[in-house]
Amino acid sequence: MPRVLPAQPGMALADVDTPALILDLDAFEGNLQKLRESISGRKIMLRPHAKSHKCPEIALRQMALGAVGVCCQKVSEAEAMVEGGVPDVLIANEVVGMTKLKRLAALTKKAKITVCADDAGNVAQIDIAAREAGVTIDVLVEVNVGANRCGVAPGEPALKIAQAIAVCKNLRYAGLQAYQGGAQHLRGVAERRAAIDTAIDGVEKTLALIEGAGLPRGKVTGAGTGTYLFEAASRVYDELQVGSYIFMDADYAKNDWTESGIPRFEHSLFVWTTVMSRTRPDIAIVDAGLKASSIDSGMPRVADFPQAEFQKASDEHGVIKMNGTPGFALGDKIKLIPGHCDPTVNLYDHYVCVRGGKVEALWPITARGAVW
Amino acid sequence: MPRVLPAQPGMALADVDTPALILDLDAFEGNLQKLRESISGRKIMLRPHAKSHKCPEIALRQMALGAVGVCCQKVSEAEAMVEGGVPDVLIANEVVGMTKLKRLAALTKKAKITVCADDAGNVAQIDIAAREAGVTIDVLVEVNVGANRCGVAPGEPALKIAQAIAVCKNLRYAGLQAYQGGAQHLRGVAERRAAIDTAIDGVEKTLALIEGAGLPRGKVTGAGTGTYLFEAASRVYDELQVGSYIFMDADYAKNDWTESGIPRFEHSLFVWTTVMSRTRPDIAIVDAGLKASSIDSGMPRVADFPQAEFQKASDEHGVIKMNGTPGFALGDKIKLIPGHCDPTVNLYDHYVCVRGGKVEALWPITARGAVW
Repeated sequence: MPRVLPAQPGMALADVDTPALILDLDAFEGNLQKLRESISGRKIMLRPHAKSHKCPEIALRQMALGAVGVCCQKVSEAEAMVEGGVPDVLIANEVVGMTKLKRLAALTKKAKITVCADDAGNVAQIDIAAREAGVTIDVLVEVNVGANRCGVAPGEPALKIAQAIAVCKNLRYAGLQAYQGGAQHLRGVAERRAAIDTAIDGVEKTLALIEGAGLPRGKVTGAGTGTYLFEAASRVYDELQVGSYIFMDADYAKNDWTESGIPRFEHSLFVWTTVMSRTRPDIAIVDAGLKASSIDSGMPRVADFPQAEFQKASDEHGVIKMNGTPGFALGDKIKLIPGHCDPTVNLYDHYVCVRGGKVEALWPITARGAVW
Repeated sequence: MPRVLPAQPGMALADVDTPALILDLDAFEGNLQKLRESISGRKIMLRPHAKSHKCPEIALRQMALGAVGVCCQKVSEAEAMVEGGVPDVLIANEVVGMTKLKRLAALTKKAKITVCADDAGNVAQIDIAAREAGVTIDVLVEVNVGANRCGVAPGEPALKIAQAIAVCKNLRYAGLQAYQGGAQHLRGVAERRAAIDTAIDGVEKTLALIEGAGLPRGKVTGAGTGTYLFEAASRVYDELQVGSYIFMDADYAKNDWTESGIPRFEHSLFVWTTVMSRTRPDIAIVDAGLKASSIDSGMPRVADFPQAEFQKASDEHGVIKMNGTPGFALGDKIKLIPGHCDPTVNLYDHYVCVRGGKVEALWPITARGAVW
């Protein structure tokens, strides 16, 4: 399936055809620096989540600025990262079924791989896969600290899984996965802080039991862009799994950041789109719909034109109400800020990396579609 | 970017790893037949929309059962269809900008290509692209018959665009694109019928003006799965652009079909998913989230277990409330019916085609990500 590349290095952004996924390199690099500065001096490791970008080029730049490795959600994502040169991947998720576990075990021969578990039967299967591959696999217990997705309850249930891991010959108990995903998009700072305080309580209670049972402490890993300074300040979390800070989507931008201490990350990720129909006075139709910008967390925003409102997306069309905004002639190209960066990235094969109005590079999104 | 194939022909569905996009061939072929029977004896052409499936293997099967060609939304989609052996493609959409128009003109040397327009300036550009390529391009006027997306108003505005096309040396005025996209998902049959009656009125009014002005009638093309028998019965529409009938997603299934005359198409498209966390009594977490099944038109439904409710999707997780449904043990695989088939298909590189519990074929989704 040969595919036309969306751009060539050196060409003007104005000449890039649409829709295309644009990465503003100045804003992106600024976000990397802002995060680094915001945690500098703290005893905390940085392990950004690669589910947001799915791109080894980005992972390696995060590591060049101090990240110890990346997180992934899927074995196939981890395979793409390792293939792209990332030496240390935490699959911050459960991996269920022998087909995937065999791939997981094979991958541990190429890079340092850690995985999560929340079920004793699954732990036993990971052990079998490790034994068959002749490897030892690091396993974290996923604790449900409020996201109510995967994970066992803090305290005794978590201890039981830790013990189940520790008794397996081919596994190493490595600590706790404690990501409070439900807190990240709570709009108020106080709400987010309260949710993380509760998460920290659950982690501390669990750590006390685990150490009391004679198991090693291991590491505590979690946190997202909405709350990471609270986890970093906790002295309980050892590692931050921030993902969206590099792009800053429209949904995250709705959070209140005042007095959170978290820097204002800039929007660096855009969907480049063309006005393709202009038959009604206050409506512009653009060529980016829901196959170009995911609407699961709300519509995209129109960059640079705050009055213009992206009202509706169908498969390949976006309806923009101009609200008196001048311009938007047929053929004009504009930038959209995606509602949610992660699933938007997953629609594209390349980032068109832009600086000063010129294309500087194309970065392949090698883990696009890596759902296994 | 080498990618693992999601399955191999001959293997049992039970062994196919998840998430995977499953096409039930019996249901799919049944839907093709049902559509054919429902329009047999009518003087109407069938031109299914390939934006739903993005797969030449499917397009060729539709043509083998009488379709005259397919519709596409994008030049890149049309390129993939022509590359896959489809000889006749209508781009049922505007194509704006010389970059795309040059590709459009080049494609007319390989297959019969038609495009839509709703702007005189755009018409002039299509003419330039045709002249430069030394071809004649067929152009339809898109009429806004109620979808309020692209298209000019019926009547005089449509006539003006038709005349703008007709005077261009390298273009041929080919008729009207009159798709009432807003009608397809109106739940009641009477509402859908009323919306199509209004569309038909607009088309008739426009045809009268166009023929009165001495232009050829051309063809009238439009209709979707929700309403196509109303357009077929109109004696005004010549061609049907149905897309979703082959898959029948959860959103379309919410329409009332009673006394519409439209057959009950069966669900043939599924997301195959694994129960990956089971730590709370009435909740099962599956490994298919919004990167595996698009939620733009609502959550997926759990096939075969009507009580179980897919409540929430995050990137790579789905939360299913069991509501007392037994089973769903860790590692169990279940089928989801996507909320909206088109953007779900666009997440995958292959259909895993299944019959009688076995994988019969893999069909590549060659136009996946074809947004240009």
